[in-house]
Amino acid sequence: LEIAKNKIVLIVEYDGTDYCGFQFQDNGATIQDELEKALFKLTTEKTRIVGASRTDTGVHARGQVVSFFSASRLVPAEFPAGLDYYLPQDIAVVAAYQVNPEFDVQRSAVSREYLYRIWNRPSRSPLLRRYCQHVKATLDVEQMNEAAQLVVGELDLASFVTELSRSVVRSTVRRVFEARVEREGEEVRFSIRAQSFLPHQVRNTIGSLIRVGLGKMGIEDFKKILEEKTPGLARPTAPAKGLVLVKVNYPRPLGDYHEDL
Amino acid sequence: LEIAKNKIVLIVEYDGTDYCGFQFQDNGATIQDELEKALFKLTTEKTRIVGASRTDTGVHARGQVVSFFSASRLVPAEFPAGLDYYLPQDIAVVAAYQVNPEFDVQRSAVSREYLYRIWNRPSRSPLLRRYCQHVKATLDVEQMNEAAQLVVGELDLASFVTELSRSVVRSTVRRVFEARVEREGEEVRFSIRAQSFLPHQVRNTIGSLIRVGLGKMGIEDFKKILEEKTPGLARPTAPAKGLVLVKVNYPRPLGDYHEDL
Repeated sequence: LEIAKNKIVLIVEYDGTDYCGFQFQDNGATIQDELEKALFKLTTEKTRIVGASRTDTGVHARGQVVSFFSASRLVPAEFPAGLDYYLPQDIAVVAAYQVNPEFDVQRSAVSREYLYRIWNRPSRSPLLRRYCQHVKATLDVEQMNEAAQLVVGELDLASFVTELSRSVVRSTVRRVFEARVEREGEEVRFSIRAQSFLPHQVRNTIGSLIRVGLGKMGIEDFKKILEEKTPGLARPTAPAKGLVLVKVNYPRPLGDYHEDL
Repeated sequence: LEIAKNKIVLIVEYDGTDYCGFQFQDNGATIQDELEKALFKLTTEKTRIVGASRTDTGVHARGQVVSFFSASRLVPAEFPAGLDYYLPQDIAVVAAYQVNPEFDVQRSAVSREYLYRIWNRPSRSPLLRRYCQHVKATLDVEQMNEAAQLVVGELDLASFVTELSRSVVRSTVRRVFEARVEREGEEVRFSIRAQSFLPHQVRNTIGSLIRVGLGKMGIEDFKKILEEKTPGLARPTAPAKGLVLVKVNYPRPLGDYHEDL
Protein backbone atom coordinates (compact mmCIF):
# COMPACT_ATOMS: atom_id res chain seq x y z
CA LEU A 1 0.00 0.00 0.00
CA GLU A 2 1.44 3.33 -1.00
CA ILE A 3 0.91 6.37 1.17
CA ALA A 4 -0.50 9.31 -0.77
CA LYS A 5 1.93 12.19 -0.82
CA ASN A 6 1.13 15.79 -1.55
CA LYS A 7 3.35 18.14 -3.47
CA ILE A 8 4.01 21.28 -1.45
CA VAL A 9 5.61 24.48 -2.71
CA LEU A 10 7.23 27.05 -0.41
CA ILE A 11 8.36 30.62 -0.98
CA VAL A 12 11.58 31.10 0.96
CA GLU A 13 13.56 34.21 1.96
CA TYR A 14 17.17 33.97 3.15
CA ASP A 15 20.29 35.90 4.00
CA GLY A 16 22.90 33.88 2.11
CA THR A 17 25.91 35.41 3.92
CA ASP A 18 26.71 32.34 6.01
CA TYR A 19 25.74 29.61 3.49
CA CYS A 20 27.49 27.75 0.69
CA GLY A 21 24.60 28.52 -1.65
CA PHE A 22 21.23 26.91 -2.07
CA GLN A 23 22.09 23.43 -3.23
CA PHE A 24 23.43 20.54 -1.12
CA GLN A 25 27.25 20.40 -0.96
CA ASP A 26 29.83 18.32 0.85
CA ASN A 27 31.81 21.19 2.26
CA GLY A 28 29.41 23.41 4.16
CA ALA A 29 25.89 24.30 5.23
CA THR A 30 23.44 25.15 2.47
CA ILE A 31 19.89 26.49 2.38
CA GLN A 32 18.69 23.10 1.12
CA ASP A 33 20.29 21.36 4.16
CA GLU A 34 18.58 23.71 6.58
CA LEU A 35 15.18 23.37 4.90
CA GLU A 36 15.40 19.57 4.80
CA LYS A 37 16.47 19.44 8.45
CA ALA A 38 13.58 21.70 9.49
CA LEU A 39 11.12 19.62 7.42
CA PHE A 40 12.34 16.48 9.15
CA LYS A 41 11.86 18.06 12.58
CA LEU A 42 8.38 19.27 11.65
CA THR A 43 7.05 16.23 9.78
CA THR A 44 9.52 13.43 10.76
CA GLU A 45 9.81 12.73 7.02
CA LYS A 46 13.11 12.55 5.18
CA THR A 47 12.34 14.56 2.06
CA ARG A 48 14.37 15.91 -0.80
CA ILE A 49 13.56 19.49 -1.79
CA VAL A 50 14.05 21.04 -5.23
CA GLY A 51 14.71 24.77 -5.74
CA ALA A 52 13.64 26.91 -8.70
CA SER A 53 16.94 28.76 -8.90
CA ARG A 54 20.34 27.60 -7.64
CA THR A 55 21.80 30.54 -5.79
CA ASP A 56 25.58 30.60 -5.28
CA THR A 57 27.53 30.90 -2.03
CA GLY A 58 26.67 34.21 -0.35
CA VAL A 59 23.74 35.08 -2.64
CA HIS A 60 20.46 36.07 -0.96
CA ALA A 61 16.82 35.42 -1.85
CA ARG A 62 13.54 37.15 -1.16
CA GLY A 63 11.47 34.78 -3.26
CA GLN A 64 13.18 31.42 -3.80
CA VAL A 65 10.59 28.74 -4.67
CA VAL A 66 11.10 25.13 -3.51
CA SER A 67 9.00 21.98 -3.68
CA PHE A 68 8.86 18.57 -1.97
CA PHE A 69 6.50 15.64 -1.48
CA SER A 70 4.98 15.04 1.93
CA ALA A 71 2.54 12.57 3.49
CA SER A 72 2.10 14.92 6.44
CA ARG A 73 -1.42 15.79 7.58
CA LEU A 74 -0.43 19.44 7.93
CA VAL A 75 -2.32 21.84 5.70
CA PRO A 76 -0.11 24.15 3.60
CA ALA A 77 -0.90 27.17 5.80
CA GLU A 78 0.73 25.38 8.74
CA PHE A 79 4.12 25.01 7.09
CA PRO A 80 5.50 28.60 7.28
CA ALA A 81 5.27 29.10 11.06
CA GLY A 82 6.01 25.41 11.69
CA LEU A 83 9.23 25.49 9.67
CA ASP A 84 10.28 28.95 10.90
CA TYR A 85 10.25 27.53 14.42
CA TYR A 86 13.05 25.10 13.47
CA LEU A 87 14.89 27.23 10.89
CA PRO A 88 17.77 29.56 11.83
CA GLN A 89 16.97 33.30 11.88
CA ASP A 90 18.57 33.88 8.48
CA ILE A 91 16.05 31.64 6.66
CA ALA A 92 12.25 32.02 6.67
CA VAL A 93 9.29 30.48 4.87
CA VAL A 94 7.05 33.25 3.56
CA ALA A 95 4.19 31.15 2.14
CA ALA A 96 3.18 27.56 1.29
CA TYR A 97 0.82 26.04 -1.29
CA GLN A 98 -0.29 22.57 -2.31
CA VAL A 99 0.18 22.01 -6.06
CA ASN A 100 -0.45 19.33 -8.70
CA PRO A 101 2.35 16.75 -8.86
CA GLU A 102 2.90 17.95 -12.46
CA PHE A 103 3.81 21.44 -11.33
CA ASP A 104 7.60 21.76 -11.51
CA VAL A 105 9.25 24.70 -9.72
CA GLN A 106 11.99 24.82 -12.37
CA ARG A 107 10.28 23.88 -15.62
CA SER A 108 6.94 25.56 -14.94
CA ALA A 109 8.70 28.88 -14.29
CA VAL A 110 8.40 31.50 -17.04
CA SER A 111 10.99 33.89 -15.64
CA ARG A 112 13.29 34.73 -12.74
CA GLU A 113 14.09 38.20 -11.40
CA TYR A 114 17.39 39.14 -9.80
CA LEU A 115 18.54 42.39 -8.21
CA TYR A 116 22.15 43.49 -7.75
CA ARG A 117 22.78 46.26 -5.22
CA ILE A 118 25.79 48.59 -5.23
CA TRP A 119 26.64 51.07 -2.47
CA ASN A 120 28.09 53.99 -4.36
CA ARG A 121 29.78 56.64 -2.23
CA PRO A 122 33.37 57.05 -1.00
CA SER A 123 32.78 55.60 2.49
CA ARG A 124 31.46 52.10 3.06
CA SER A 125 28.02 51.43 4.57
CA PRO A 126 27.96 49.50 7.87
CA LEU A 127 24.18 49.09 7.57
CA LEU A 128 24.24 47.61 4.05
CA ARG A 129 27.60 45.83 4.21
CA ARG A 130 26.04 42.37 3.87
CA TYR A 131 23.79 43.29 0.97
CA CYS A 132 25.70 45.64 -1.32
CA GLN A 133 28.97 45.70 -3.22
CA HIS A 134 30.85 48.90 -2.37
CA VAL A 135 32.01 51.03 -5.31
CA LYS A 136 33.70 54.26 -4.19
CA ALA A 137 33.86 56.30 -7.40
CA THR A 138 30.58 57.73 -8.73
CA LEU A 139 29.01 55.47 -11.34
CA ASP A 140 27.53 56.85 -14.55
CA VAL A 141 24.17 55.14 -14.24
CA GLU A 142 22.85 56.36 -17.59
CA GLN A 143 25.77 54.78 -19.45
CA MET A 144 25.33 51.57 -17.48
CA ASN A 145 21.63 51.44 -18.25
CA GLU A 146 22.26 52.03 -21.95
CA ALA A 147 24.80 49.18 -22.02
CA ALA A 148 22.42 46.94 -20.05
CA GLN A 149 19.87 47.20 -22.87
CA LEU A 150 22.32 45.33 -25.13
CA VAL A 151 21.83 42.10 -23.16
CA VAL A 152 18.02 42.20 -23.54
CA GLY A 153 16.59 39.75 -26.07
CA GLU A 154 17.22 36.15 -27.11
CA LEU A 155 21.00 36.19 -27.27
CA ASP A 156 24.06 33.97 -27.19
CA LEU A 157 25.66 35.08 -23.91
CA ALA A 158 28.76 32.86 -24.18
CA SER A 159 30.97 35.81 -23.13
CA PHE A 160 29.13 36.02 -19.82
CA VAL A 161 30.16 32.57 -18.54
CA THR A 162 33.52 31.04 -17.68
CA GLU A 163 35.22 28.41 -19.85
CA LEU A 164 34.31 25.82 -17.22
CA SER A 165 30.62 26.77 -17.14
CA ARG A 166 30.55 26.80 -20.95
CA SER A 167 31.47 23.14 -20.94
CA VAL A 168 28.60 22.11 -18.66
CA VAL A 169 25.66 24.01 -20.18
CA ARG A 170 23.84 22.72 -23.23
CA SER A 171 23.48 26.14 -24.79
CA THR A 172 24.61 29.67 -23.92
CA VAL A 173 21.54 31.24 -25.52
CA ARG A 174 19.25 32.88 -23.00
CA ARG A 175 16.11 34.98 -23.25
CA VAL A 176 16.43 38.20 -21.20
CA PHE A 177 13.15 40.12 -20.95
CA GLU A 178 14.25 43.20 -19.08
CA ALA A 179 17.36 44.85 -17.63
CA ARG A 180 17.59 48.18 -15.84
CA VAL A 181 20.20 50.18 -13.92
CA GLU A 182 18.96 52.99 -11.70
CA ARG A 183 20.13 55.16 -8.84
CA GLU A 184 18.30 55.57 -5.54
CA GLY A 185 20.32 58.07 -3.53
CA GLU A 186 23.67 56.47 -2.71
CA GLU A 187 22.56 53.06 -4.00
CA VAL A 188 22.77 51.85 -7.60
CA ARG A 189 20.45 48.95 -8.48
CA PHE A 190 20.68 46.57 -11.40
CA SER A 191 17.53 44.52 -11.97
CA ILE A 192 17.23 41.81 -14.59
CA ARG A 193 14.44 39.43 -15.57
CA ALA A 194 15.09 36.43 -17.82
CA GLN A 195 13.52 33.09 -18.67
CA SER A 196 16.56 31.48 -17.04
CA PHE A 197 20.17 32.43 -16.33
CA LEU A 198 23.61 31.02 -17.10
CA PRO A 199 25.97 30.36 -14.16
CA HIS A 200 27.31 33.72 -12.86
CA GLN A 201 25.54 35.56 -15.69
CA VAL A 202 24.17 38.35 -13.48
CA ARG A 203 27.44 38.87 -11.59
CA ASN A 204 29.52 38.90 -14.79
CA THR A 205 27.06 41.29 -16.44
CA ILE A 206 27.08 43.79 -13.56
CA GLY A 207 30.87 43.38 -13.20
CA SER A 208 31.21 44.59 -16.79
CA LEU A 209 28.53 47.25 -16.40
CA ILE A 210 30.45 48.68 -13.43
CA ARG A 211 33.49 49.06 -15.70
CA VAL A 212 31.24 51.00 -18.09
CA GLY A 213 29.93 53.11 -15.17
CA LEU A 214 33.49 53.94 -14.11
CA GLY A 215 34.45 54.99 -17.64
CA LYS A 216 36.99 52.17 -17.91
CA MET A 217 35.13 50.80 -20.90
CA GLY A 218 32.72 52.34 -23.44
CA ILE A 219 29.36 50.99 -24.58
CA GLU A 220 31.05 49.89 -27.81
CA ASP A 221 33.50 47.76 -25.80
CA PHE A 222 30.61 46.20 -23.91
CA LYS A 223 28.94 45.43 -27.24
CA LYS A 224 32.15 43.83 -28.51
CA ILE A 225 32.31 41.56 -25.45
CA LEU A 226 28.78 40.39 -26.20
CA GLU A 227 29.48 39.88 -29.90
CA GLU A 228 32.70 37.93 -29.46
CA LYS A 229 30.83 35.08 -27.71
CA THR A 230 33.98 34.02 -25.88
CA PRO A 231 33.80 32.65 -22.31
CA GLY A 232 35.58 34.79 -19.69
CA LEU A 233 35.33 38.12 -21.54
CA ALA A 234 32.67 39.68 -19.29
CA ARG A 235 34.38 40.30 -15.94
CA PRO A 236 35.07 40.72 -13.12
CA THR A 237 32.48 38.51 -11.44
CA ALA A 238 30.88 40.92 -8.97
CA PRO A 239 30.82 39.79 -5.30
CA ALA A 240 27.94 37.47 -4.34
CA LYS A 241 26.72 39.59 -1.42
CA GLY A 242 25.16 42.24 -3.71
CA LEU A 243 22.92 39.69 -5.44
CA VAL A 244 19.39 38.70 -4.44
CA LEU A 245 16.90 36.39 -6.15
CA VAL A 246 13.78 38.55 -6.00
CA LYS A 247 11.08 36.42 -7.60
CA VAL A 248 10.30 33.38 -9.72
CA ASN A 249 7.30 33.87 -12.01
CA TYR A 250 4.79 31.21 -13.10
CA PRO A 251 1.92 31.43 -15.60
CA ARG A 252 -0.64 31.38 -12.78
CA PRO A 253 -0.50 32.45 -9.09
CA LEU A 254 0.92 29.55 -7.03
CA GLY A 255 -2.36 29.25 -5.13
CA ASP A 256 -4.11 28.22 -8.39
CA TYR A 257 -2.08 25.05 -9.00
CA HIS A 258 -4.14 22.87 -6.65
CA GLU A 259 -7.28 23.22 -8.81
CA ASP A 260 -7.17 19.81 -10.41
CA LEU A 261 -6.32 17.86 -7.25
CA LEU B 1 54.13 76.27 24.86
CA GLU B 2 50.70 74.98 23.99
CA ILE B 3 50.13 73.00 20.83
CA ALA B 4 47.31 74.39 18.72
CA LYS B 5 44.49 71.90 18.44
CA ASN B 6 41.80 71.86 15.81
CA LYS B 7 38.20 70.90 16.43
CA ILE B 8 37.13 68.17 14.03
CA VAL B 9 33.59 66.96 13.42
CA LEU B 10 32.77 63.56 11.90
CA ILE B 11 29.57 62.11 10.47
CA VAL B 12 29.44 58.45 11.51
CA GLU B 13 27.31 55.52 10.35
CA TYR B 14 27.07 52.31 12.39
CA ASP B 15 25.27 49.03 12.83
CA GLY B 16 24.59 49.07 16.57
CA THR B 17 23.73 45.35 16.83
CA ASP B 18 26.95 44.34 18.57
CA TYR B 19 27.51 47.47 20.70
CA CYS B 20 26.40 48.67 24.13
CA GLY B 21 25.29 51.98 22.65
CA PHE B 22 27.23 55.07 21.69
CA GLN B 23 28.59 56.27 24.99
CA PHE B 24 31.53 54.81 26.94
CA GLN B 25 30.48 52.11 29.46
CA ASP B 26 32.25 49.75 31.83
CA ASN B 27 30.54 46.59 30.67
CA GLY B 28 31.02 46.33 26.92
CA ALA B 29 32.23 47.78 23.65
CA THR B 30 30.67 51.06 22.55
CA ILE B 31 30.84 53.16 19.40
CA GLN B 32 32.75 55.82 21.35
CA ASP B 33 35.40 53.23 22.38
CA GLU B 34 35.92 52.10 18.82
CA LEU B 35 36.16 55.65 17.47
CA GLU B 36 38.65 56.71 20.16
CA LYS B 37 40.76 53.59 19.54
CA ALA B 38 40.80 54.23 15.79
CA LEU B 39 41.70 57.91 16.37
CA PHE B 40 44.59 56.84 18.57
CA LYS B 41 45.87 54.46 15.92
CA LEU B 42 45.55 57.10 13.19
CA THR B 43 46.87 60.17 15.07
CA THR B 44 48.66 58.65 18.15
CA GLU B 45 46.61 61.13 20.21
CA LYS B 46 44.48 60.11 23.18
CA THR B 47 41.33 62.11 22.54
CA ARG B 48 37.87 62.19 24.02
CA ILE B 49 35.03 62.35 21.51
CA VAL B 50 31.58 63.82 22.10
CA GLY B 51 28.45 62.61 20.26
CA ALA B 52 25.41 64.68 19.27
CA SER B 53 22.93 61.99 20.25
CA ARG B 54 23.42 59.16 22.75
CA THR B 55 22.14 56.06 21.05
CA ASP B 56 21.19 53.08 23.27
CA THR B 57 22.45 49.50 23.10
CA GLY B 58 21.54 48.01 19.71
CA VAL B 59 20.41 51.29 18.13
CA HIS B 60 21.89 52.14 14.72
CA ALA B 61 22.95 55.44 13.12
CA ARG B 62 23.27 56.73 9.59
CA GLY B 63 24.22 60.26 10.61
CA GLN B 64 25.63 60.42 14.14
CA VAL B 65 27.76 63.56 14.57
CA VAL B 66 30.82 63.51 16.83
CA SER B 67 33.59 66.00 17.64
CA PHE B 68 37.07 65.98 19.15
CA PHE B 69 40.19 68.15 19.36
CA SER B 70 43.30 67.12 17.48
CA ALA B 71 46.81 68.50 16.95
CA SER B 72 47.23 66.16 13.98
CA ARG B 73 48.52 67.57 10.71
CA LEU B 74 45.90 65.57 8.80
CA VAL B 75 43.43 67.67 6.83
CA PRO B 76 39.76 66.83 7.54
CA ALA B 77 39.34 65.03 4.20
CA GLU B 78 41.96 62.50 5.30
CA PHE B 79 40.04 61.35 8.39
CA PRO B 80 37.26 59.20 6.84
CA ALA B 81 39.42 56.72 4.92
CA GLY B 82 42.13 56.91 7.60
CA LEU B 83 39.72 55.99 10.40
CA ASP B 84 37.79 53.43 8.32
CA TYR B 85 41.06 51.55 7.91
CA TYR B 86 41.20 50.96 11.69
CA LEU B 87 37.47 50.77 12.46
CA PRO B 88 35.53 47.47 12.42
CA GLN B 89 33.25 46.87 9.41
CA ASP B 90 30.12 47.86 11.35
CA ILE B 91 31.30 51.46 11.88
CA ALA B 92 32.29 53.95 9.17
CA VAL B 93 33.15 57.63 8.96
CA VAL B 94 31.14 59.24 6.17
CA ALA B 95 32.59 62.76 6.25
CA ALA B 96 34.84 65.07 8.30
CA TYR B 97 35.00 68.85 8.76
CA GLN B 98 37.07 71.32 10.71
CA VAL B 99 34.89 73.66 12.79
CA ASN B 100 35.22 76.62 15.16
CA PRO B 101 35.99 75.57 18.74
CA GLU B 102 32.66 77.23 19.67
CA PHE B 103 30.69 74.81 17.52
CA ASP B 104 29.10 72.22 19.83
CA VAL B 105 27.72 69.03 18.28
CA GLN B 106 25.02 68.87 20.98
CA ARG B 107 24.11 72.49 21.71
CA SER B 108 24.48 73.83 18.18
CA ALA B 109 22.04 71.19 16.88
CA VAL B 110 18.56 72.45 15.99
CA SER B 111 16.98 69.02 15.55
CA ARG B 112 17.52 65.26 15.41
CA GLU B 113 15.74 62.81 13.10
CA TYR B 114 15.06 59.19 14.02
CA LEU B 115 13.47 56.39 12.00
CA TYR B 116 11.83 53.28 13.45
CA ARG B 117 11.35 50.34 11.06
CA ILE B 118 8.75 47.60 11.47
CA TRP B 119 8.56 44.46 9.35
CA ASN B 120 4.84 43.84 9.07
CA ARG B 121 3.85 40.49 7.61
CA PRO B 122 3.20 37.07 9.18
CA SER B 123 6.65 35.61 8.45
CA ARG B 124 9.87 37.16 9.69
CA SER B 125 12.41 38.75 7.33
CA PRO B 126 15.89 37.17 7.31
CA LEU B 127 17.20 40.10 5.26
CA LEU B 128 15.94 42.82 7.62
CA ARG B 129 16.18 40.93 10.90
CA ARG B 130 18.86 43.24 12.31
CA TYR B 131 17.08 46.45 11.35
CA CYS B 132 13.35 45.95 11.89
CA GLN B 133 11.02 44.94 14.69
CA HIS B 134 8.74 42.13 13.47
CA VAL B 135 4.98 42.65 13.92
CA LYS B 136 2.94 39.78 12.45
CA ALA B 137 -0.59 41.20 12.42
CA THR B 138 -1.38 43.91 9.84
CA LEU B 139 -0.99 47.39 11.31
CA ASP B 140 -3.54 50.13 10.66
CA VAL B 141 -1.06 52.73 9.49
CA GLU B 142 -3.64 55.51 9.09
CA GLN B 143 -4.71 55.18 12.72
CA MET B 144 -1.08 55.13 13.83
CA ASN B 145 -0.27 58.23 11.80
CA GLU B 146 -3.28 60.08 13.23
CA ALA B 147 -2.21 59.22 16.79
CA ALA B 148 1.39 60.23 15.98
CA GLN B 149 0.23 63.77 15.23
CA LEU B 150 -0.75 64.12 18.91
CA VAL B 151 2.91 64.12 19.97
CA VAL B 152 3.84 66.96 17.59
CA GLY B 153 4.35 70.35 19.24
CA GLU B 154 5.97 71.67 22.42
CA LEU B 155 4.60 69.15 24.91
CA ASP B 156 5.17 67.64 28.33
CA LEU B 157 6.02 64.06 27.37
CA ALA B 158 6.36 62.74 30.95
CA SER B 159 4.28 59.65 30.06
CA PHE B 160 6.88 58.67 27.45
CA VAL B 161 9.74 58.15 29.92
CA THR B 162 10.27 55.71 32.78
CA GLU B 163 10.12 56.73 36.44
CA LEU B 164 13.90 56.39 36.58
CA SER B 165 14.51 58.59 33.54
CA ARG B 166 12.03 61.16 34.89
CA SER B 167 14.25 61.61 37.93
CA VAL B 168 17.37 62.37 35.88
CA VAL B 169 16.05 64.85 33.28
CA ARG B 170 15.57 68.50 34.13
CA SER B 171 12.32 68.77 32.21
CA THR B 172 10.08 66.38 30.29
CA VAL B 173 8.97 69.09 27.87
CA ARG B 174 10.22 68.52 24.34
CA ARG B 175 9.62 70.21 21.02
CA VAL B 176 8.63 67.69 18.33
CA PHE B 177 8.55 69.21 14.84
CA GLU B 178 7.26 66.31 12.80
CA ALA B 179 6.06 62.71 13.18
CA ARG B 180 4.86 60.38 10.43
CA VAL B 181 3.87 56.73 10.09
CA GLU B 182 3.76 55.29 6.58
CA ARG B 183 3.74 51.94 4.83
CA GLU B 184 6.19 50.91 2.12
CA GLY B 185 5.13 47.45 1.02
CA GLU B 186 5.65 45.08 3.94
CA GLU B 187 7.53 47.69 5.96
CA VAL B 188 5.96 50.29 8.27
CA ARG B 189 8.14 53.31 9.00
CA PHE B 190 7.84 55.80 11.83
CA SER B 191 9.89 58.96 11.37
CA ILE B 192 10.16 61.69 13.96
CA ARG B 193 12.07 64.97 14.09
CA ALA B 194 12.48 66.90 17.35
CA GLN B 195 14.75 69.53 18.85
CA SER B 196 15.90 66.83 21.28
CA PHE B 197 14.55 63.59 22.73
CA LEU B 198 13.88 62.16 26.18
CA PRO B 199 15.48 58.76 27.04
CA HIS B 200 13.57 56.00 25.17
CA GLN B 201 11.04 58.55 23.89
CA VAL B 202 11.01 57.21 20.33
CA ARG B 203 10.81 53.56 21.37
CA ASN B 204 8.02 54.22 23.92
CA THR B 205 6.12 56.30 21.36
CA ILE B 206 6.25 53.64 18.63
CA GLY B 207 5.53 50.91 21.23
CA SER B 208 2.25 52.70 22.00
CA LEU B 209 1.55 53.50 18.35
CA ILE B 210 1.86 49.78 17.53
CA ARG B 211 -0.87 49.08 20.10
CA VAL B 212 -3.01 51.64 18.26
CA GLY B 213 -2.14 50.00 14.92
CA LEU B 214 -3.19 46.58 16.26
CA GLY B 215 -6.51 47.96 17.52
CA LYS B 216 -5.58 47.22 21.16
CA MET B 217 -5.96 50.89 21.98
CA GLY B 218 -7.87 53.77 20.35
CA ILE B 219 -6.59 57.22 19.48
CA GLU B 220 -8.47 58.52 22.53
CA ASP B 221 -6.51 56.14 24.78
CA PHE B 222 -3.28 57.35 23.22
CA LYS B 223 -4.35 60.93 23.90
CA LYS B 224 -5.11 60.03 27.52
CA ILE B 225 -1.61 58.56 27.98
CA LEU B 226 -0.14 61.83 26.74
CA GLU B 227 -2.42 63.95 28.93
CA GLU B 228 -1.84 62.02 32.14
CA LYS B 229 1.86 62.99 32.16
CA THR B 230 2.76 59.92 34.21
CA PRO B 231 6.07 58.10 33.65
CA GLY B 232 5.71 54.50 32.41
CA LEU B 233 2.31 54.91 30.74
CA ALA B 234 3.55 54.79 27.15
CA ARG B 235 4.74 51.24 26.59
CA PRO B 236 6.04 48.76 25.70
CA THR B 237 9.50 50.09 24.84
CA ALA B 238 9.96 48.83 21.27
CA PRO B 239 13.14 46.77 20.59
CA ALA B 240 16.29 48.80 19.91
CA LYS B 241 17.13 47.09 16.62
CA GLY B 242 14.33 48.91 14.71
CA LEU B 243 15.70 52.34 15.59
CA VAL B 244 18.17 54.40 13.58
CA LEU B 245 19.47 57.93 14.14
CA VAL B 246 19.10 59.34 10.64
CA LYS B 247 20.42 62.88 10.90
CA VAL B 248 21.38 65.73 13.21
CA ASN B 249 20.53 69.17 11.81
CA TYR B 250 22.49 72.40 12.37
CA PRO B 251 21.64 75.97 11.29
CA ARG B 252 24.35 75.88 8.61
CA PRO B 253 25.95 73.04 6.61
CA LEU B 254 28.83 71.56 8.66
CA GLY B 255 31.32 72.65 6.02
CA ASP B 256 30.50 76.30 6.80
CA TYR B 257 31.64 76.26 10.44
CA HIS B 258 35.31 76.76 9.66
CA GLU B 259 34.70 80.23 8.18
CA ASP B 260 36.04 82.25 11.10
CA LEU B 261 39.12 80.11 11.73
